[in-house]
Amino acid sequence: MKRIITITTDFGVSDGYVGAVKGVIKSINPNADIVDISHQIPPRDILSAAFCLHTSCPYVPKNTIHLAMVDPGVGGKRKGILVQTEKFSFIGPDNGLFGLVLRGQDIKRQISLESHKYFLKAPSATFHGRDIFAPVAAYLSLGISPVQFGPRLKKLKSLDKPFLQMSSRKITGQIIHVDHFGNLITNITPDDLKLLPNPKIRIGKTVIKKISRTYSDVPAGMLLAYVGSASYVEVGQNLGNAAATLKVKAGAKVEVSR
Amino acid sequence: MKRIITITTDFGVSDGYVGAVKGVIKSINPNADIVDISHQIPPRDILSAAFCLHTSCPYVPKNTIHLAMVDPGVGGKRKGILVQTEKFSFIGPDNGLFGLVLRGQDIKRQISLESHKYFLKAPSATFHGRDIFAPVAAYLSLGISPVQFGPRLKKLKSLDKPFLQMSSRKITGQIIHVDHFGNLITNITPDDLKLLPNPKIRIGKTVIKKISRTYSDVPAGMLLAYVGSASYVEVGQNLGNAAATLKVKAGAKVEVSR
Amino acid sequence: MKRIITITTDFGVSDGYVGAVKGVIKSINPNADIVDISHQIPPRDILSAAFCLHTSCPYVPKNTIHLAMVDPGVGGKRKGILVQTEKFSFIGPDNGLFGLVLRGQDIKRQISLESHKYFLKAPSATFHGRDIFAPVAAYLSLGISPVQFGPRLKKLKSLDKPFLQMSSRKITGQIIHVDHFGNLITNITPDDLKLLPNPKIRIGKTVIKKISRTYSDVPAGMLLAYVGSASYVEVGQNLGNAAATLKVKAGAKVEVSR
Repeated sequence: MKRIITITTDFGVSDGYVGAVKGVIKSINPNADIVDISHQIPPRDILSAAFCLHTSCPYVPKNTIHLAMVDPGVGGKRKGILVQTEKFSFIGPDNGLFGLVLRGQDIKRQISLESHKYFLKAPSATFHGRDIFAPVAAYLSLGISPVQFGPRLKKLKSLDKPFLQMSSRKITGQIIHVDHFGNLITNITPDDLKLLPNPKIRIGKTVIKKISRTYSDVPAGMLLAYVGSASYVEVGQNLGNAAATLKVKAGAKVEVSR
Repeated sequence: MKRIITITTDFGVSDGYVGAVKGVIKSINPNADIVDISHQIPPRDILSAAFCLHTSCPYVPKNTIHLAMVDPGVGGKRKGILVQTEKFSFIGPDNGLFGLVLRGQDIKRQISLESHKYFLKAPSATFHGRDIFAPVAAYLSLGISPVQFGPRLKKLKSLDKPFLQMSSRKITGQIIHVDHFGNLITNITPDDLKLLPNPKIRIGKTVIKKISRTYSDVPAGMLLAYVGSASYVEVGQNLGNAAATLKVKAGAKVEVSR
Repeated sequence: MKRIITITTDFGVSDGYVGAVKGVIKSINPNADIVDISHQIPPRDILSAAFCLHTSCPYVPKNTIHLAMVDPGVGGKRKGILVQTEKFSFIGPDNGLFGLVLRGQDIKRQISLESHKYFLKAPSATFHGRDIFAPVAAYLSLGISPVQFGPRLKKLKSLDKPFLQMSSRKITGQIIHVDHFGNLITNITPDDLKLLPNPKIRIGKTVIKKISRTYSDVPAGMLLAYVGSASYVEVGQNLGNAAATLKVKAGAKVEVSR
């Protein structure tokens, strides 16, 4: 069966780990259509992975299987899960990884991966990506029923919500992601902004006095705020790297005021 | 329809941007055969992307669609384009990106991408790769006629030509690309060299006295000049990194004399 | 013919080199199913590439063609080879690259790649990956018989074995690979350990007093030894980077004693 399986990991691309995962999938379902999302999530950074899935998965065709492996607790107490929504299946560790992409989605089924018959033989304690999650994704792509992989799970581990406080005078939020270009993505949405006419955005000592449409609306080298492609307020720099210029990392406080 | 779509970007591989682009393509044409060329073009470096396309595209099968997105002017005045040659289709921003790969090719058609019906709904101002270029590439791969995507465009934006001056005694050119191994690729061709018997290559204070065939023709650690795989004169270092050793970047001057 | 071709290189992903290789393959066999293993092997690091192949190839389906190109001697005296085992075909330079993955395998055939009719016309001296190895892999995937590519080769170049000395009191081995997470992979196997009850692992001045099962068996930030997913003893750090903490690189000495 042809079926898309996306892969999102923090494995990097200098080892054989990604190749082993792809090999396991293709060995079980040679017709799986593997789509790499990212293998460069910062090591063990669950929030980064959650944001990456949140901004890419919704664009992928219905019935896709999303395999995600950022798994600092591998081999320990955390469960492996399969979560199904109307549109997608998600497979990976139960550590909040799917917290953003599942927000607002109807979950049809959540399964604890416990049926050893769908794992590689003698799974290692440190590479469940290869030994458990990849084969489960591949068997699911062949049409094995989700309930075959283990018992239903009552509750998924949730992701810590980033700080967000709103009043009629001020919104205080956070940088939740710094992208490859150094754009600073906040957890403030255009809807939130409706409360504040003529918003001013403050990060540290820097104040940006309006919301622009795109980078080239301001001169080269100037900082700007805009509603980004992920539908959050972002701070960027035309032809520059805002994170480097402002020396700001994920987690930093952002204030929007009248 | 099965059709190859190559992707070349400066998006990096730590965000969800590449995944979103692939998802959009597969949602429109599930049989598109996506081939990653590079997602690590240095941010906004149009010349690097042009060189990458120039050295990879010609090897790809006829009828391939090349999608390239290095787009510092996204959402501003620059147009989106579809360019067709006898062999390929090229889709991306009109900023010179295709300047090298199109050199010497007969252009059959150049189109300004303006038909909103082939874009995602409500395209963002900062991610035309996902919202405009990817869906246009996918619809083109399904057989939609190029003229459906917008009006013909009179003139493409050109790429600044690197400096090249030739006399019967000396050629002065530039390093146009530094590759992953630190090899310095110049804009001087083997044809240019025919004018100068026994050429000596000078970069800064370093002089290389002949053209070798390959790295191992010289001892380990020694610099050499050779005609590289892109058919330009290159300067490399056997078992070393010439760019690091010579502290040279793209743009540096190169002289070849008798 | 649909056939998996994996690619492992040190080409990086910022140039057009990988794209050119994929293009050559698809031009000869449009149905080749290309699976990227890694393009980020450290430049010219044959041992790293050998380890990457060793840990990924065995998981890939039977009849796969493994194309590997880490080739510091390109264009010089080293031969190009095609090696066949019961399960796989391997194509690349004869420099020890396949030394680990072939260990313990029955080799059915080893061929020196000499038939120019299966190369690109006028192969370059510096990019045999594109001009020789990629087309040979693609023609092989179409069903061309291995013996067509050149004469049989008597002996493959071997890989230097890492240092390993064993007594009833002590095993002295080496770090053979540092992975993306900073885990230190040794050349000591669980079988070797059987000789030493209650083993203590020493790297430099650091001593680890037992073998754990997985990272979370020890507190955050603590170093641990465990049998890793490649079936070697590894030293890691729970939620940390052991290589950075211990300032250790591949090649470092490891001692295991009672």
